[in-house]
Amino acid sequence: MKAYIEENKDRFLQELLELLRIPSVSADLSFKGDVMRAAEFLREKLEAAGADNAQLFKTAGNPIVYADKIIDPALPTVLVYGHYDVQPADPYELWNSPPFEPVIKDEKIYARGACDDKGQTYMHVKAFETMMQQQALPCNVKFMIEGEEEVGSVNLATFVKENKERLKADIIVISDTGMLANDVPSVTTGLRGLSYHEVEVTGPNRDLHSGLYGGAVANPINILCKMIASLHDENNHITIPGFYDNVEELSQEERAEMARAPFSLDAYKIALDLPDVHGEAGYSTMERNSIRPTLDVNGIWGGYTGEGAKTVIPSKAFAKISMRLVPHQTSEEISALFQKHFESIAPASVKVVVKPHHGGEPVVTPTTSAGYQAAARAMEDTFGKKPVPVRSGGSIPIVAMFKSVLETDTVLMGFGLDSDAIHSPNEHFGVFNFMKGIETIPLFYQHFAQLHGKS
Amino acid sequence: MKAYIEENKDRFLQELLELLRIPSVSADLSFKGDVMRAAEFLREKLEAAGADNAQLFKTAGNPIVYADKIIDPALPTVLVYGHYDVQPADPYELWNSPPFEPVIKDEKIYARGACDDKGQTYMHVKAFETMMQQQALPCNVKFMIEGEEEVGSVNLATFVKENKERLKADIIVISDTGMLANDVPSVTTGLRGLSYHEVEVTGPNRDLHSGLYGGAVANPINILCKMIASLHDENNHITIPGFYDNVEELSQEERAEMARAPFSLDAYKIALDLPDVHGEAGYSTMERNSIRPTLDVNGIWGGYTGEGAKTVIPSKAFAKISMRLVPHQTSEEISALFQKHFESIAPASVKVVVKPHHGGEPVVTPTTSAGYQAAARAMEDTFGKKPVPVRSGGSIPIVAMFKSVLETDTVLMGFGLDSDAIHSPNEHFGVFNFMKGIETIPLFYQHFAQLHGKS
Repeated sequence: MKAYIEENKDRFLQELLELLRIPSVSADLSFKGDVMRAAEFLREKLEAAGADNAQLFKTAGNPIVYADKIIDPALPTVLVYGHYDVQPADPYELWNSPPFEPVIKDEKIYARGACDDKGQTYMHVKAFETMMQQQALPCNVKFMIEGEEEVGSVNLATFVKENKERLKADIIVISDTGMLANDVPSVTTGLRGLSYHEVEVTGPNRDLHSGLYGGAVANPINILCKMIASLHDENNHITIPGFYDNVEELSQEERAEMARAPFSLDAYKIALDLPDVHGEAGYSTMERNSIRPTLDVNGIWGGYTGEGAKTVIPSKAFAKISMRLVPHQTSEEISALFQKHFESIAPASVKVVVKPHHGGEPVVTPTTSAGYQAAARAMEDTFGKKPVPVRSGGSIPIVAMFKSVLETDTVLMGFGLDSDAIHSPNEHFGVFNFMKGIETIPLFYQHFAQLHGKS
Repeated sequence: MKAYIEENKDRFLQELLELLRIPSVSADLSFKGDVMRAAEFLREKLEAAGADNAQLFKTAGNPIVYADKIIDPALPTVLVYGHYDVQPADPYELWNSPPFEPVIKDEKIYARGACDDKGQTYMHVKAFETMMQQQALPCNVKFMIEGEEEVGSVNLATFVKENKERLKADIIVISDTGMLANDVPSVTTGLRGLSYHEVEVTGPNRDLHSGLYGGAVANPINILCKMIASLHDENNHITIPGFYDNVEELSQEERAEMARAPFSLDAYKIALDLPDVHGEAGYSTMERNSIRPTLDVNGIWGGYTGEGAKTVIPSKAFAKISMRLVPHQTSEEISALFQKHFESIAPASVKVVVKPHHGGEPVVTPTTSAGYQAAARAMEDTFGKKPVPVRSGGSIPIVAMFKSVLETDTVLMGFGLDSDAIHSPNEHFGVFNFMKGIETIPLFYQHFAQLHGKS
């Protein structure tokens, strides 16, 4: 198979660039048509690779690309999940090349979605093509590729509930996470959950002159800042009552195990040009961004933000505030606590509206499962060393949903790197990583087919 | 003269609308051409009204319109100051009619600049025309109308210093303030100063995924909010060390005198739809917005502010922060204190840049001066009652500059109302107020010519 992959490397890359040229931004409705084009592109490629039942399933939002290949109902089945939608690309001016005009430079593919998740999804499509061409598909496979992951997979749960039989599988594999380094392969064993809100603070009913009214009326920006500031104490603990009640506390052994993963604080600070790190007292940087819950303002706006100076007290100020959750916290519980608390800390001089966006649940994957073991062995085959199990700070809310609705475990076998700048300007994906993925996935299938039922 | 003003009312209004159609926004360089058109418009109208030496004086920024009429060097001279530039009009969507397509509705002129300050400046042009037409100019007059007041009159001081002789006068009159009500005439006897800054907080060197990095790196929005929140204590006192050191404390008598000015807290709250007022403990609303210094955020921005949800930790967050100053505080001193303090409260995990914008000094006009007395008598003639002396919370920084450079006092005889929504959407100016101004100004000239030298 390796030979086939090498021979077709250039074509695989060209096809990915074609997919990356489609600006399928799900957060912005003006890209709706491009979102549809990206879905149709994947449907065609799956069909061309030899999949059956390749089709687009309508949802209340963007369609879900489905395809499968059932070679023998007696054999185990792998369900591949990915997403073809991407994050908004702004701020555009910070990109060295346009986000939707992909370029390969220094062996890296630069484009919005290069890694998250078009690049990693397309590895599976090309790995499938390879297995088909080499008559080497060792089990059944199903594909479910959605177009709303970056806006909270709002319609996926409905689709999954309505298609339990169609989606029946023995393992779900997702490549939407990263590895520690190209020479330190790893498999993600945990994900944080998410609770996302938009808040609006209203003071006076119109923008006011800050000279004539300043000091006498509540300035919604000042108030919003005070409210946000109060959400963390001096130790950077989150002050929302009950927020930590259900937080999973790791044992000293588990924390010691985590601490063994290779990590250089200096390299981390240099890579991000940080004068210093910043976070919850009593926890390491690796712990802060993986096993601890967080609260971050993702956006804030209000008043005059143009050129020059305008002496105004705005009528309204806004912020987007999200919390990352850890095992045993639920987004429903935390969203309720946040809303109640945020409304309770508003002074009498303003009106506050809290609008919940999507949420997602945290998950942990046991390293003893057949899925994890198959991924670990496949990576050991291709990287020449055992991968490290790693808790990621990111969220893939649907993993918990798959477990509860389909009763199927998920293995998170990702090939990206933290430095790929996903969700940022100049997102990229290594050609090495893309090819390693295509090479590793068929081996995962083989190991899983052998291990399944034995573990 | 009253007859002449009545006969020409419609033409006066049409000419003002013509001026209001020119979007002379000084804060935004894309309006540069319109700014020039507004200046030329006023120059022509002054010349047409009979002024001599009507010309535009070049500055490093927008030109200054100058004109004069010297009927007898032995007579006193009035210097009229006004400005033809306007505030930015955004948010456009909140205007009931386009800001630069003026309409007269319910006896009010709606447009950006209708009151501040095109409407009030144009009263002086038409009052001058009236006195000339009626051979009733009782003294000499000079006009100085600038185009950068809304961006801090950055080039006016240089012009004034270089033209001391040309601008020599016995009193400066400015109509860029308001009255308490149409049936409660008032003259402004005090103004607050201004210290305006833009701050930039930088965390990581690029936008980051809030899942992979959240909790481990400083989020510049959260940090900026914490820094801004710390600028006020629980009593809404400003916490900048030394901020209050030079603040003029009024005597109980002065505060009691102020408290006699007609004011309804309920009406105030209803007009602004405020659940409650908000401000410094121990002071009334009227005191908070006039004799007390303030700190307001005029704008804030950072991160993702578009549609939907983006889970990002931005690299940078920004705010525009201004302080209103009271007598004995200087903008230079306060700007230095603010910059030093704001930099000192930044945590080690971020970089902070404080960029000072323009400043201005507070002033108080003695009610005993000939200028104040002339304004008071003129208003009593036209309104039928003595005007109330009022401290305004606004800033006209150049008043202090005129005093120090030209050694000339200023009288602030304004005809606007607080409800005119200057600097806000749907700014307007009453036709009643516009006409009353044209009627009152010639009487001010007469009283001043008589009182001058006597007081």
